[in-house]
Amino acid sequence: MTGVSILPVAGIPELEEGDDLVTLIVERVELEDGDVVVIAQKAISKIEGRIVHLDGIDPSPRAVEIAGEEGDAARRIEVILREAKSIIRVRPPLVICETSHGFICASAGVDASNAPEPGTLVLLPLDPDGTAARLRDELRERTGREVGVIVTDSFGRPWRQGTVDVAIGAAGVLALQDLAGERDPIGYELQNTVIAVADEIASAAHLVSGKLARVPVTIVRGLDVRGDGRATDIPVPPERDLFR
Amino acid sequence: MTGVSILPVAGIPELEEGDDLVTLIVERVELEDGDVVVIAQKAISKIEGRIVHLDGIDPSPRAVEIAGEEGDAARRIEVILREAKSIIRVRPPLVICETSHGFICASAGVDASNAPEPGTLVLLPLDPDGTAARLRDELRERTGREVGVIVTDSFGRPWRQGTVDVAIGAAGVLALQDLAGERDPIGYELQNTVIAVADEIASAAHLVSGKLARVPVTIVRGLDVRGDGRATDIPVPPERDLFR
Repeated sequence: MTGVSILPVAGIPELEEGDDLVTLIVERVELEDGDVVVIAQKAISKIEGRIVHLDGIDPSPRAVEIAGEEGDAARRIEVILREAKSIIRVRPPLVICETSHGFICASAGVDASNAPEPGTLVLLPLDPDGTAARLRDELRERTGREVGVIVTDSFGRPWRQGTVDVAIGAAGVLALQDLAGERDPIGYELQNTVIAVADEIASAAHLVSGKLARVPVTIVRGLDVRGDGRATDIPVPPERDLFR
Repeated sequence: MTGVSILPVAGIPELEEGDDLVTLIVERVELEDGDVVVIAQKAISKIEGRIVHLDGIDPSPRAVEIAGEEGDAARRIEVILREAKSIIRVRPPLVICETSHGFICASAGVDASNAPEPGTLVLLPLDPDGTAARLRDELRERTGREVGVIVTDSFGRPWRQGTVDVAIGAAGVLALQDLAGERDPIGYELQNTVIAVADEIASAAHLVSGKLARVPVTIVRGLDVRGDGRATDIPVPPERDLFR
């Protein structure tokens, strides 16, 4: 019975701007060809210095209106509004935004949990697909292994409570697996059967990485998902989106 | 490096109404305490006889209007309308519905792919939480093992292309894991941090089960997710839902 393994990379220290994540990974795990290296967004954001101190933020009137007060709550909303390309829904203090990358999520991905210190917020990486590609290339150079890399974040969903992890960056893997034209076992042609395989990998990895265990890197081993997908391929094009 | 394993249960034959799934599982896999047995919805629906023949369906005017034609397309829409508790969005031929269970998904879960024969449609099980509980009890009786059971289906999502597998039935596992009140490593209290762990397990299992491989049962081993959640706990209560 061969299957898929989800393996935590244990012992990675708290990350700071400029840290060499590739070295931290290859010192701790023997990568194999076809592995998918799954990295929590917050690790990437910290290494890339995507941290904002609330102290320096001057909230706009719109931010104060949404927050319902001045002070840190309004500063936090102001940071979210600056990160957002557009606003999808507001029900204070919840603000659902489209990010610069085209993802739609709460707070434009701005998060206070697991921030480096109180009074700071962590922003999404500027180009998580680019980061994933760079890390994949460095991992290949260091180990000779062809691996995929996925950067993940925890997103809420309409209609279903709770967050699930999804891909916000990808390199060397399929993002969307299109089964159109293939046939199921009785010969029915599968139509419109696109699987968001990078999102399923992100969710699988999160079962191991958790939020409290401080395991920012997880290896998913045993899949055959090599490809050249990007996480920015996943958002529904606005003109086809029924839920904006 | 201990992690989580996702193991396919190979060799389960094509399923028919009345089949004894518990026997088919225990003959093929040595279950361990804490395993989560993940079963594709279509397997349950076939065993429970949730199959409709299009021949006998008389489409309503509304179904013909949505389909844009009479014939099998309208009959298929009619089956969907009969399964739906409410209609969320229509963009022909796409109909997004709330099911009797409270799930919101395309076509009220009605599906032609992997149907037992051409001209038939597979409906969702009537009570997938109940089926999961019954199977968990039978598996305990047969093996002495305390396992969780999750019934899964592939759902599309607003804003993101492709489907991911989610839980539509659950027993013996957490459905939503609420971390409220716990603290992250720097002491920030995690608020509103509910993880849809049953959905993440469903997505993880789907990486192995796939659509074409005919693997209706997958074992997820190595998690600590015992609980008494139900998949019908997951939908957002209508009064709090921003996207209906």
